[in-house]
Amino acid sequence: MKLAVIEGDGVGKEVIPAALQVLDCFDLSLEKIPLNLGYGKWEKTGQAITDADLKILKECDCILFGAVTTPADPNYKSVLLTIRRELDLYANIRPLKPIKGIKGATGNSDFDILVVRENTEGLYSSIEQVVENEAWSKRIITRRASERIAQIACEYAAKRHNHLTIVHKSNVIKADSLFLNTCREVAQSHNVIHDAMLVDAMAYDMVRSPEKYDVVVAPNLYGDILSDLGGALVGSLGLLPSANVGEKQAFFEPVHGSAPDIAGRGIANPIAAVLSVALLLDWLDKPEQARIVREAVEASINENIKTADLGGNSTTAQVTEFLVQYVQSH
Amino acid sequence: MKLAVIEGDGVGKEVIPAALQVLDCFDLSLEKIPLNLGYGKWEKTGQAITDADLKILKECDCILFGAVTTPADPNYKSVLLTIRRELDLYANIRPLKPIKGIKGATGNSDFDILVVRENTEGLYSSIEQVVENEAWSKRIITRRASERIAQIACEYAAKRHNHLTIVHKSNVIKADSLFLNTCREVAQSHNVIHDAMLVDAMAYDMVRSPEKYDVVVAPNLYGDILSDLGGALVGSLGLLPSANVGEKQAFFEPVHGSAPDIAGRGIANPIAAVLSVALLLDWLDKPEQARIVREAVEASINENIKTADLGGNSTTAQVTEFLVQYVQSH
Ligand SMILES: CC(C)[C@H](C(=O)O)[C@@H](O)C(=O)O
Ligand SMILES: CC(C)[C@H](C(=O)O)[C@@H](O)C(=O)O
Repeated sequence: MKLAVIEGDGVGKEVIPAALQVLDCFDLSLEKIPLNLGYGKWEKTGQAITDADLKILKECDCILFGAVTTPADPNYKSVLLTIRRELDLYANIRPLKPIKGIKGATGNSDFDILVVRENTEGLYSSIEQVVENEAWSKRIITRRASERIAQIACEYAAKRHNHLTIVHKSNVIKADSLFLNTCREVAQSHNVIHDAMLVDAMAYDMVRSPEKYDVVVAPNLYGDILSDLGGALVGSLGLLPSANVGEKQAFFEPVHGSAPDIAGRGIANPIAAVLSVALLLDWLDKPEQARIVREAVEASINENIKTADLGGNSTTAQVTEFLVQYVQSH
Repeated sequence: MKLAVIEGDGVGKEVIPAALQVLDCFDLSLEKIPLNLGYGKWEKTGQAITDADLKILKECDCILFGAVTTPADPNYKSVLLTIRRELDLYANIRPLKPIKGIKGATGNSDFDILVVRENTEGLYSSIEQVVENEAWSKRIITRRASERIAQIACEYAAKRHNHLTIVHKSNVIKADSLFLNTCREVAQSHNVIHDAMLVDAMAYDMVRSPEKYDVVVAPNLYGDILSDLGGALVGSLGLLPSANVGEKQAFFEPVHGSAPDIAGRGIANPIAAVLSVALLLDWLDKPEQARIVREAVEASINENIKTADLGGNSTTAQVTEFLVQYVQSH
């Protein structure tokens, strides 16, 4: 198995080495292939990601990714979006699960949501035009993409509480009826219990009653917004891992960005990256190892080995050391 | 002044009469023009709103609107969207302000946000096509619409804390750069302090730190999502009023829908409709009267005269009676 490792920019350079230390506790015979991509590379070479990089990535089985800084420059091609698209990583999987000992914004920690975000189309089509005084973007919904995202969402649902919520705005956007109806058909054929929520009502209800949801499937941008919102319910974006999954490949990344304000100071929270490693372990079919990593994270909180964003005063290195020791002794 | 009154469907038929009782406490010499629109009319006549209705509405100065039920039928033409578009009510104004005595989802009631939602374009363009397996929608952002929404947002900001937050997703959608840059220019020329937030980060931060925001300007659908989210922070969608404002006309409506599940039982919460009357009074340049209405609402909560959605056991009629008496004696 080949694992591409992309630290990227900012805190990516701190949390990925930390996450690798945890991963290296297991004997997985992964061949690691480091790749230098992102803003730093763009500044030096004018390209954040090259065709050669993409070729290497396509030959890897999986990718561990930190974060990249995106400059305001309109010519900058987003590394993240490029990889998602070029590798056809169609499902963005974002677990929203409270961590014992961390209080989210509403104090409710009795929920466990899996956001399954369609990752290839919607408003991320890149079909757009800007003339001086008017700009349009083509938002695309296809049956094929809706079908495959619903399928993977149903597979997750079957392993969880068999409940799928389909997010849409079909009272305004007709294309969302295609998404909604396709997801309904797939859920029916999988015998998954399903309901539908308008995206505005969903933002409202997720804050009020997150415990009502199990798997939530959503078009691209709705999933983007709702999963960030979920970060507030969990307690911090610095805690959310994610997986971008394709037919044969998968790409793991913390949901947080490169956080230039705290980069280089050794205080970045490695938890989202470490939990992304847990998702990688799940994907590699190592559930026992994934469980231990998650347990280690909970133990670190319980022992108050926390970075500043969680109100602690431990460094990235101290948290990582604790996690490694926990994993090695379990 | 001519005020069109549209009860609509469901609880609209209960909360609008309640709101009118409060409005009638003042001597405003408004000529009221009742109009029957919505799903009920559609069932009977096949049309939810007719050209004749629109003609009458265009001749009114302002509109008080309850709620309408929208059936899943793809041929149904949304009354709400039709009126907003036909009357060119370009600004959707949604105050997110906690009411003393009501606890929102996060317990934080130290905020006062005004969402100014662009109400004419974005994903609400209705330019869309659905063929069997593929559907697209044209999302439109124009300088003109961005300019006028920024202008009205800046006017509100100047009367508040002079702080404007511009919501966008220009790291993915180029059109949002047009929105962002236009809003920035307008804010600059109005000397309004301004910053920008990505819509996903905004959903996150509004839950965590709503006190950081003053006026928030957003493209159509982002404003839709963020204002519903704000309902959870305030405590209930049943509390949010809104105004749809055009060059010469304005349309006032509670943000909540027709709530068919509780309609007809006399238990609907009239507060959002009554606070919409307060917005109407503001618009009529009756700030003193608007203040008394808001005070009455706070007093009702304080006296525990609350409907079931707020944990009370008062009926719509009882809450309304209290409000009327309060207003009449102040
Ligand atoms: C950085 C940005 C392009 C990205 C997205 O919108 O998908 C991010 O918000 C995410 O959620 O991974
Ligand atoms: C009912 C629907 C068309 C409407 C909208 O999307 O604008 C509603 O959600 C609102 O916010 O007023």
